[in-house]
Amino acid sequence: MLRSVSSDGTSGSSERNAPASMARGARAMKMKSQATQVKTDAPASSSAGGKKRVYLLSEGNKDMKMVLGGKGANLCEMTKLTLPVPPAFIITTETCLEYFKEGTGDLPAALDYEFALKAIEEDTGKKFGDPLNPLLVSVRSGAPASMPGMMDTVLNLGLNDEIVEGIIKTTGNERFAYDTYRRFLNMYSDVVMDLDKEPFEEVITSIKKRKGIKLDLEMEAADWKEVVGEFKKLNPNVPSDPREQLRGAILAVFRSWNNDRAIRYRSYNNIPDEWGTAVSVQAMAYGNMNDGCGTGVAFSRNPSTGENKFFGEFLPNAAGEDVVAGIRTPQPLEEMATKWPGVYEELYKYQEQLEKYYCDMQDIEFTVENGRLYMLQCRNGKRTAKAAVKIAVDMVKEGALTEAEALLRIPANQMDFFLHPTLDPTAQKTKIGVGLPASPGAATGKIVFTPDDAEVMANMGEEVILVRKETTPEDIHGMKSAEGVLTALGGMTSHAAVVARGMGKCCVSGCTAAEVNAKSKVLKLGDVELKEHDVITIDGSTGEVYLGTVERRSAAEDEDFQTVLGWADKMRKLKVLTNADTPEQAAQARKLGAQGIGLCRSEHMFFEPERISSMRAMIVAEGKEERLQHLETLSVFQREDISGILKEMDGLPVTVRLLDPPLHEFLPHSPDEMQSLADTLGKPFSVVKDRVKQLKEVNPMLGFRGCRLSVVYPEITDMQARAVARAAAANKKAGLDPKPEIMVPVVSSAKELRLIVPRIVAAVKEELDKAGVDVKIPIGTMLELPRACETADQIVGTDDVEFISFGTNDLTQTVWGFSRDDAIRFIGRYQEQGLLDFDPFARIDEEGVGGLINMAIEKARTKQPETKVGICGEHGGEPNSVQFFHSSNFDYVSCSPFRVPIARISAGQAAAVEVSAQNKLYRESITNVKRAPK
Amino acid sequence: MLRSVSSDGTSGSSERNAPASMARGARAMKMKSQATQVKTDAPASSSAGGKKRVYLLSEGNKDMKMVLGGKGANLCEMTKLTLPVPPAFIITTETCLEYFKEGTGDLPAALDYEFALKAIEEDTGKKFGDPLNPLLVSVRSGAPASMPGMMDTVLNLGLNDEIVEGIIKTTGNERFAYDTYRRFLNMYSDVVMDLDKEPFEEVITSIKKRKGIKLDLEMEAADWKEVVGEFKKLNPNVPSDPREQLRGAILAVFRSWNNDRAIRYRSYNNIPDEWGTAVSVQAMAYGNMNDGCGTGVAFSRNPSTGENKFFGEFLPNAAGEDVVAGIRTPQPLEEMATKWPGVYEELYKYQEQLEKYYCDMQDIEFTVENGRLYMLQCRNGKRTAKAAVKIAVDMVKEGALTEAEALLRIPANQMDFFLHPTLDPTAQKTKIGVGLPASPGAATGKIVFTPDDAEVMANMGEEVILVRKETTPEDIHGMKSAEGVLTALGGMTSHAAVVARGMGKCCVSGCTAAEVNAKSKVLKLGDVELKEHDVITIDGSTGEVYLGTVERRSAAEDEDFQTVLGWADKMRKLKVLTNADTPEQAAQARKLGAQGIGLCRSEHMFFEPERISSMRAMIVAEGKEERLQHLETLSVFQREDISGILKEMDGLPVTVRLLDPPLHEFLPHSPDEMQSLADTLGKPFSVVKDRVKQLKEVNPMLGFRGCRLSVVYPEITDMQARAVARAAAANKKAGLDPKPEIMVPVVSSAKELRLIVPRIVAAVKEELDKAGVDVKIPIGTMLELPRACETADQIVGTDDVEFISFGTNDLTQTVWGFSRDDAIRFIGRYQEQGLLDFDPFARIDEEGVGGLINMAIEKARTKQPETKVGICGEHGGEPNSVQFFHSSNFDYVSCSPFRVPIARISAGQAAAVEVSAQNKLYRESITNVKRAPK
Repeated sequence: MLRSVSSDGTSGSSERNAPASMARGARAMKMKSQATQVKTDAPASSSAGGKKRVYLLSEGNKDMKMVLGGKGANLCEMTKLTLPVPPAFIITTETCLEYFKEGTGDLPAALDYEFALKAIEEDTGKKFGDPLNPLLVSVRSGAPASMPGMMDTVLNLGLNDEIVEGIIKTTGNERFAYDTYRRFLNMYSDVVMDLDKEPFEEVITSIKKRKGIKLDLEMEAADWKEVVGEFKKLNPNVPSDPREQLRGAILAVFRSWNNDRAIRYRSYNNIPDEWGTAVSVQAMAYGNMNDGCGTGVAFSRNPSTGENKFFGEFLPNAAGEDVVAGIRTPQPLEEMATKWPGVYEELYKYQEQLEKYYCDMQDIEFTVENGRLYMLQCRNGKRTAKAAVKIAVDMVKEGALTEAEALLRIPANQMDFFLHPTLDPTAQKTKIGVGLPASPGAATGKIVFTPDDAEVMANMGEEVILVRKETTPEDIHGMKSAEGVLTALGGMTSHAAVVARGMGKCCVSGCTAAEVNAKSKVLKLGDVELKEHDVITIDGSTGEVYLGTVERRSAAEDEDFQTVLGWADKMRKLKVLTNADTPEQAAQARKLGAQGIGLCRSEHMFFEPERISSMRAMIVAEGKEERLQHLETLSVFQREDISGILKEMDGLPVTVRLLDPPLHEFLPHSPDEMQSLADTLGKPFSVVKDRVKQLKEVNPMLGFRGCRLSVVYPEITDMQARAVARAAAANKKAGLDPKPEIMVPVVSSAKELRLIVPRIVAAVKEELDKAGVDVKIPIGTMLELPRACETADQIVGTDDVEFISFGTNDLTQTVWGFSRDDAIRFIGRYQEQGLLDFDPFARIDEEGVGGLINMAIEKARTKQPETKVGICGEHGGEPNSVQFFHSSNFDYVSCSPFRVPIARISAGQAAAVEVSAQNKLYRESITNVKRAPK
Repeated sequence: MLRSVSSDGTSGSSERNAPASMARGARAMKMKSQATQVKTDAPASSSAGGKKRVYLLSEGNKDMKMVLGGKGANLCEMTKLTLPVPPAFIITTETCLEYFKEGTGDLPAALDYEFALKAIEEDTGKKFGDPLNPLLVSVRSGAPASMPGMMDTVLNLGLNDEIVEGIIKTTGNERFAYDTYRRFLNMYSDVVMDLDKEPFEEVITSIKKRKGIKLDLEMEAADWKEVVGEFKKLNPNVPSDPREQLRGAILAVFRSWNNDRAIRYRSYNNIPDEWGTAVSVQAMAYGNMNDGCGTGVAFSRNPSTGENKFFGEFLPNAAGEDVVAGIRTPQPLEEMATKWPGVYEELYKYQEQLEKYYCDMQDIEFTVENGRLYMLQCRNGKRTAKAAVKIAVDMVKEGALTEAEALLRIPANQMDFFLHPTLDPTAQKTKIGVGLPASPGAATGKIVFTPDDAEVMANMGEEVILVRKETTPEDIHGMKSAEGVLTALGGMTSHAAVVARGMGKCCVSGCTAAEVNAKSKVLKLGDVELKEHDVITIDGSTGEVYLGTVERRSAAEDEDFQTVLGWADKMRKLKVLTNADTPEQAAQARKLGAQGIGLCRSEHMFFEPERISSMRAMIVAEGKEERLQHLETLSVFQREDISGILKEMDGLPVTVRLLDPPLHEFLPHSPDEMQSLADTLGKPFSVVKDRVKQLKEVNPMLGFRGCRLSVVYPEITDMQARAVARAAAANKKAGLDPKPEIMVPVVSSAKELRLIVPRIVAAVKEELDKAGVDVKIPIGTMLELPRACETADQIVGTDDVEFISFGTNDLTQTVWGFSRDDAIRFIGRYQEQGLLDFDPFARIDEEGVGGLINMAIEKARTKQPETKVGICGEHGGEPNSVQFFHSSNFDYVSCSPFRVPIARISAGQAAAVEVSAQNKLYRESITNVKRAPK
């Protein structure tokens, strides 16, 4: 069949080695043209217009992902390592871009792959379109970054009525021939010609029904022949010329780069639209010819637990798509060891070799054709957070990686897995089903049956579990919105499992007892019938499904995770503080490694029932006297709260931000509530109503808030400053080491600080003097408006201003002109249309927002080199953003308590890039760091 | 009396010349120490700590305003010119700042003025505090910029019980002595000791009542003596030591730099808080000794009309404050020519001399003491817009100024005077009173009786006339808010008149028939009794007052104004375009000199009744089909409107901005209106309600608007682009020369343009091809978000983007984080507290907003040097901002039609500064351009 590769895994026959050495020769020869590909004309056979558009496997290597896609580059590399790879050629990603740029709808005129097709023919000894000895090929997409299932593939290409007869003759297997032909017709009609799949499926279903059978395996040669006949009636227009088929399939793959789900996936995963996809055209290897064939997926270590044990699944007599689609439940790889020990041994050897070579856990796709093993794909394997950590720690222990290298392999943004609760083993629970433990963690939520429902409910703040028969790439947005995913079909490597693990989301797959009816929105599990919005709990670590809510508890300390955190702490230069407003949060954050509080939102203390009424009374006060009276009450609360926080953070800085939100946020707005407030205050309704009306704002984000309140109501600031000082004094007197700091928000010019800061200084001094204690209380300000960034030198030049902290949430709003509350209306469309590579509220916009930040830091440090610089927006816990803050020489980041470990790891990684010079590895391993092509 | 100056205006007696030459000698001697004042110690007599704090008149000159204040510098200069100036010394502005910085509440320890006091004593031959030959002094404020009446003054200082007897002895005038003493006690109690004025006034009122008299002039010596006795009971604490009095008065003047009304005035007039006031201590000259005395104010040309004729008023037997206060109505200066021809002749000579010397119209204060003329002040006179223009044109004709110099004297921001309507002489009207034509123009409005009411009503959008008995500096904010001012008392140089002219506001003063009762809010004019909010019309050019509304008409073409515009057009480099949304506005703007339209807000065309319903239907449309249908209707309106505008602006650019506001601005919000819309559209109420709810925004300014609409609803943009192209085609076919441009608003990244601009290009091309005409329609974008400025290189690097126009309104909102709609809640307090030197929405903030603008221009021009750069925010018609745009090499500014002439003049001035090298003159003459001291 495939002349070039051997089924013998132990010793390379000359037959197998020939093309490999040929390949090496060709590679050596091509190295030169490759290095100079832009400037010099490569040989006419493989390039035109000065650009090389087509590569043989012998011409590429693993470092050419940007050109050949991840899949193509690794096929080249495996060929280089003399592994049995079916011969193929790769059309470059640039050719795809060229296709879109030309916009003719046809292939770029300069694209010529005939020479490469000929090379495959020579290698396999078959001929494309030759009925006597037909070569069939697969045509697959392959982007520089993994986009599993997002783009199109056409298999078994090169068949027509005449050639199918040739297949029967050469293989003597009529059933296989018609099975293959029907697969081709089906796929080509769907992928290339965009016909509805349903009628094709119905053909097969009705034959099965007629015959009283259920499985594809039960279909006989005549049945598949009948199917082929019916398919040709459904679509008589599949071209019969194999070269025309090939042209159509390549175009379809190009087009699929810009299909909706691919665009959406790129948007979610921050993959630039400008990359394009490569196309691989590869000789087919068949796992579905007979029982001596099979296909499977394997991992060099367990992708779920990280255990260092070869792990995988295979399906005998099946095509590759049957495994990935999750339609049949595959067998554990161990069974292959019994069935085909030689093949298993060969595969085992290759996975060892590849892991060692790539220095990372490998995800391998393979096919066994008549006892011969073919390697179809290898790549660094996706893994759960838990597996990532275990693998990293193990590989350091094994001496395979340094700590810095290993740290760079940790997907920092998935580390919250270790912080989220698992099911309480002692809790009362009603088990209603069990499936595969596809992605660990535990989740409780209302069940929904469509991805759209999941999204809608989640946007309404509901926690949902997405229940599906099986998931497809169209379900991604629903999976993203759900707390967890439950599927009836599919194995540990099914779409649902792979994607959920990638998202760090819990998933139970292959829960075969589940009858899922998406139409009537009913889930049956044995006797239990659940309707939409009924609550279930799933445990992705055990595969169990429970009725209703099951109590969860914090994850147990994971030793490996602590090891990784230890590496990060050793390496990082950034301090990691937290945003916390209560003693409880402070305590939790401290446990998670926070080195202090970078943002304590003082107003949060006023929202509790007892306090909000004093706050409201203060706001509605008619005149300063009355206001002062209510401030006095608030002062006591504020002092007590801050005192409690200082106690929890004893010895670490606690940065108290002065009142930030517009006052109307504290007031009620419905007539009933206003009346009730008026009654409580003993004031006429009109007073409350007028005040509410007076404070109402058109654009509260740009309104009367932050230090503007301090300018108009200095007595509020005075109260807050005194409360901080009194709280500090109380702690100091109790023998503790309080380190409060005071931060002024929403500053737009240094003049505001010149007015406000001296007032704070005076109030603090008076209180400390009164208490007779000495506590240093540094004062700083938030830079969260463009003008504050532009005038940072003046701001830090203000007497007694010692630190600046960037409020990147508000800064993003003003720099982009995006209201965070309103942008939801268009930001989705922006991402879909490629106008945003990522959500700038989640990840720092280095160009716009970052530009102002860097300007501000330069101005500030030039004026006052010792200024402390921090960030307390939500970007403080996002890995890419943390790297930016590291590069911009921040002193600290501050993020929510559960993000603290992520920030610690990210900060460690940012430093490790420098110490390990393993920048490139880092780029590959961390999920979100992508760079545009040159 | 004052030994140093002569009453003889024709020939200087040796007596008079002696001190003058002495002064010159002293000046020559001092020049050196002055030039090196910071680095070297000046003689101990006048400086300490390396700083010269006290100047004799002989030591300064007119260029030292920053140090000596405007008043002090000009006193020095008049002394230099040998004019009869009472001897004085000046304490520097820096000393005032020193006072505030030290914050001890006492005079800076290093301040020593004894040597200077001695010099005055020597000059006058009198002795401060010597009962036998007492020297009395005035202590006056004097800032670098004129702040009329804003700060404090103490006159007649140096009196006590013993010294008043000395005055009686030396003058033989007991009445004068006690009159002076009571004035001193009254003023000192008020100004220095901050006592309530009322009880003091009551003392006088009750004596007058008892005696049955009304006027001060009717008071006899014994009466004033009684008054003095009563005053001393009211305030027994006026220090009797003259030196202690002097110390107190200097401190009071220092303090008055930071009184509320001074801070507010500076804020209104953009005078930096950091300047401080100088203090002049000057020998008193008395205009109120007897009938041979008097005091007055004169202008070298008519400050109202500009006529080249010596003009002024005087009050016989009165102190200076009596004229300015407007309590008695003064006599025209011509009557002085009859009464005291010698004095008049001398004064006439001086004013000629001063105008020639200063090259500008002079405002002079003088006192005649027993037939001797004393010059108390000279300065460049405030004038009406009309006078400014006439004086400038006349002085060019006279050869006194070049055109560039003259242009720089024009207060550009008052030029709208020439554009505002005057009363229609043919209109029906009911005259109800007549006063003095204090400040030209005509105004109609509801009457209000307090400045606060004026402000409140104006903020509510009402036009009001402020009616007062007389105005005081406390009334400034009310005058600013009113359309016009009517006072019962006061002459042409009263507070009301001077301030109104400065503001370019119409004013009728001295309408003596008016009985103004601010308490009961009633104005009686003869038989007519008017209540608050009744409407009157006043004509500031004739002094007439009319009942109700009188029709007004556009100002006649003013030849001198056209001459000035001609100078500006010759000099300016900036093009001046206009913001216009209708053919009518376009026509009007073109008449006013607009060179095209820089901003045509396309959405304004949709707000008319007939159109808004189609617009609403389009917004509420369920699906694209329905939306397209309504867009088709809108398209016709849009094309017709734009066609009309292109016709009016034939041959000139018309920049059409695509839909900008959030869609909810077009929708109704009350249930009734929503129901009505639903009925009109034949849709269920819920559809309308849901859409309204869906589009509602938290921060519309940062919401779903501008090009974001183009991203989500490309069909709207398509319609607009086609409408522009069709309108252009129609005009072209009619033989005209249409020059439309299309502008994309609210861009935050170049990617938006890369999506939107090709769509516009395609739509425009299709329409033009269809019509078979060739019109160039350049496409550009607005830079109105910080991020757009930061990435201006990418923006102008986008294919087919040819121009950028800064939207400084929105840019100011995002850079400062100030919502224009909401900032009103705190921006007033900001100005009061000196946190804002000016309203950044009125005048460009060069530091913050300007910083981003300059960054953007540099990036844009580096990338695409030929990029056209404009501005279409409201700053486009504000003189200081125009100068900034000139300096930043803009191609054009675009402003509202009535601001076009102002922009033309401002642009001419900006260029004239360069050509004339008369920068300094410009700084002095243009009202708002102030610079902080070095």
